Amino acid sequence: MLLNGKFLAGGPSLNSESTPGFFSSEVVNLPLLRQRAFNLRWAEVDSDVIPLTAADPDFPVAPPIIEAITAHISDGVLCYGPTRGLVEFREEVSASLEVGGIPAHPDQVLATDGAASALWASCRAMLAAGDEAITFDPVDFLLPHCCEVAGATVVRCPLEPISGAIPEGSLEQLIGARTRAILLCNPHNPTGRVLRREELQRVAALAVKHDLLIISDEVWGGIILGDVPMISIGSLGEDVARRTITVSGFSKTYGLAGLRIGFIHCGSRTLADQVLEASGAPRTTFGASVVSQVAAVAAMRDGQQWRDEFLQHLRRLRKIGASRLDALDGFRCPEPEGTYLLFPEIRSTGMSATELAGQLETKARVAVVPGEERWFGAGARGHIRLSFATSEEILDEALTRIERWSEAR
Amino acid sequence: MLLNGKFLAGGPSLNSESTPGFFSSEVVNLPLLRQRAFNLRWAEVDSDVIPLTAADPDFPVAPPIIEAITAHISDGVLCYGPTRGLVEFREEVSASLEVGGIPAHPDQVLATDGAASALWASCRAMLAAGDEAITFDPVDFLLPHCCEVAGATVVRCPLEPISGAIPEGSLEQLIGARTRAILLCNPHNPTGRVLRREELQRVAALAVKHDLLIISDEVWGGIILGDVPMISIGSLGEDVARRTITVSGFSKTYGLAGLRIGFIHCGSRTLADQVLEASGAPRTTFGASVVSQVAAVAAMRDGQQWRDEFLQHLRRLRKIGASRLDALDGFRCPEPEGTYLLFPEIRSTGMSATELAGQLETKARVAVVPGEERWFGAGARGHIRLSFATSEEILDEALTRIERWSEAR
Repeated sequence: MLLNGKFLAGGPSLNSESTPGFFSSEVVNLPLLRQRAFNLRWAEVDSDVIPLTAADPDFPVAPPIIEAITAHISDGVLCYGPTRGLVEFREEVSASLEVGGIPAHPDQVLATDGAASALWASCRAMLAAGDEAITFDPVDFLLPHCCEVAGATVVRCPLEPISGAIPEGSLEQLIGARTRAILLCNPHNPTGRVLRREELQRVAALAVKHDLLIISDEVWGGIILGDVPMISIGSLGEDVARRTITVSGFSKTYGLAGLRIGFIHCGSRTLADQVLEASGAPRTTFGASVVSQVAAVAAMRDGQQWRDEFLQHLRRLRKIGASRLDALDGFRCPEPEGTYLLFPEIRSTGMSATELAGQLETKARVAVVPGEERWFGAGARGHIRLSFATSEEILDEALTRIERWSEAR
Repeated sequence: MLLNGKFLAGGPSLNSESTPGFFSSEVVNLPLLRQRAFNLRWAEVDSDVIPLTAADPDFPVAPPIIEAITAHISDGVLCYGPTRGLVEFREEVSASLEVGGIPAHPDQVLATDGAASALWASCRAMLAAGDEAITFDPVDFLLPHCCEVAGATVVRCPLEPISGAIPEGSLEQLIGARTRAILLCNPHNPTGRVLRREELQRVAALAVKHDLLIISDEVWGGIILGDVPMISIGSLGEDVARRTITVSGFSKTYGLAGLRIGFIHCGSRTLADQVLEASGAPRTTFGASVVSQVAAVAAMRDGQQWRDEFLQHLRRLRKIGASRLDALDGFRCPEPEGTYLLFPEIRSTGMSATELAGQLETKARVAVVPGEERWFGAGARGHIRLSFATSEEILDEALTRIERWSEAR
């Protein structure tokens, strides 16, 4: 049995008096995660495997979220919510976007059942057969996937190796008569890069010059770990803002994946009307649970302390994770600037990502996401992706297993 | 000021010790409904208007639902749920369908964010441009709408006046080479008819003969008020079951509209795979909040007493509502067999439905849904629709206002 007894036993719940901090090893409730954490995580792997797969924290959510849901449901009134989402939800989202410099408006916010759903609804509203949409390589599969489901053809701009920077020059060559949109992911999944102002300005200038829409997936916008500041592309001036759709959600920053809550903000009323109409929300075929919206409001209003501690914890773990992986034979692992994803390049091991991930699962009993084309595009080849939104103890155990495997082969 | 003071004050919350019953007038919490009940209801009408519009109960939900949500969130673990929905959700849905005679299987159930979303996902999976889909006239706009959004052409079969029965003979004439599906609503919104076994058998025989899919919207299946038993078309034999998609949700029977929770059950594994793939659930662009699923499980497991009392209450109110409307000059109002919808024919008033609904809102201060083509099809002309899922006191006040208006004109 590879797992320590203490992992198997699980820690006390968040309600325990002895809880020493939101992100201590003791608060990770493994028995409950084994029941509840799906999407390639604890509930879907063998009981002795540590999953560093889907980007979903192992920690209980911020207490104000639990309190807000409890208070909301206590009266039992769970009627139809407003079409675009609760006013307080849209106001808080708008305020948080304004902090990031986006000229936002609550009436241009639409509550969605998750960030993935927000991306899908945006693409459905804005793209059609015959359109081309440009995104990057590698990038999370959801960006090209949502374009394709909407009928558009995806054109990929390769990012620079290791740094994940958007290369100068090559993007404009991909823009043609049918190009309708550029889709960004910032901070970038899987490279962990926080896009620089200059990169964003170049993308924005091309969008303005060629009259393109920008869809910016900022679901990782709350997880900034290094010195590079998060800049929303929608904050780069009026001409950019009015053609920008910003999508995000509350899974990564607040651990609310199970509640399926995200949003779309459109940079103009015209775009907002188009997205709303195409979404299905006015006809109740699309929308977000009011309870999930209430949870997100609590996160935005009262989740600051929890989030600050989460970021402190993640900053410590990214150093530990990146340095120990970087030290492995054949691995090269930069520290992510944002996200809680490590994305080591592993070509010098002589193995493909699929092969290496397979060995890690079967021999080291650690599950990771292989850099396969279906997940991130061809540009992810020779990489694996590991989420470190777990306790120091679990990450240490996973890294130790990987180190032992590396030494033994 | 037309509304009584007690309406404005609102009753005690569900937690009050003095609550005398789940459906007494005192438990209707008007101040909270005015904050929370959207979709043309309390939060969206003038403060002195009584909304009998969207079919959404004015009552707090069953206490076990509140308890189940509270228990689930207390540990704070809100990770990604399973792709098709929680096992316990799918098992309870499957068991409840089996009680109705459908040969159901948990693996053929998909949790969705509401019944409307279930209908939309089913149509998206099964229909495409060039296909024809047959539904009825009148019928809730969602059935034809979801077909149209999927690209199909809608062909409508007129129902018999007043009874709302599916006429013999006329349905088969509408079936052509491009016909792909028949969409039913049972119990029927807006007529309140519970479809008879013979009607369902005729539809089923045609579907088998012409190899058509059946999509059965049974969101009202839990609200049976008369002696006609609810029969799911999927229960009418293996040949029918395997071509039937049953969609439903927890808004009508359990008052969970705000939680957006419903399901799709497919009569074969092949259909289930197609619907799952097209839904987007495997890629997280579609799904249902785990908390909403937990609420639905509690409703199915422990909501029986609440639901029985709700049905008793509705049986009393349908008599009161139908008889008082039927007595009005120019109105003809049968008692609904299912649903909590009254659907009086009002042609003899000499007014159109739109005009009459307008007068009721401005003069009687009661909001109803006019039988306009956009809501129900041309077959709803000359009717209005009123929901009576409220307290006896509020319904009485609304009817009194309508009676006064009728006498005065």
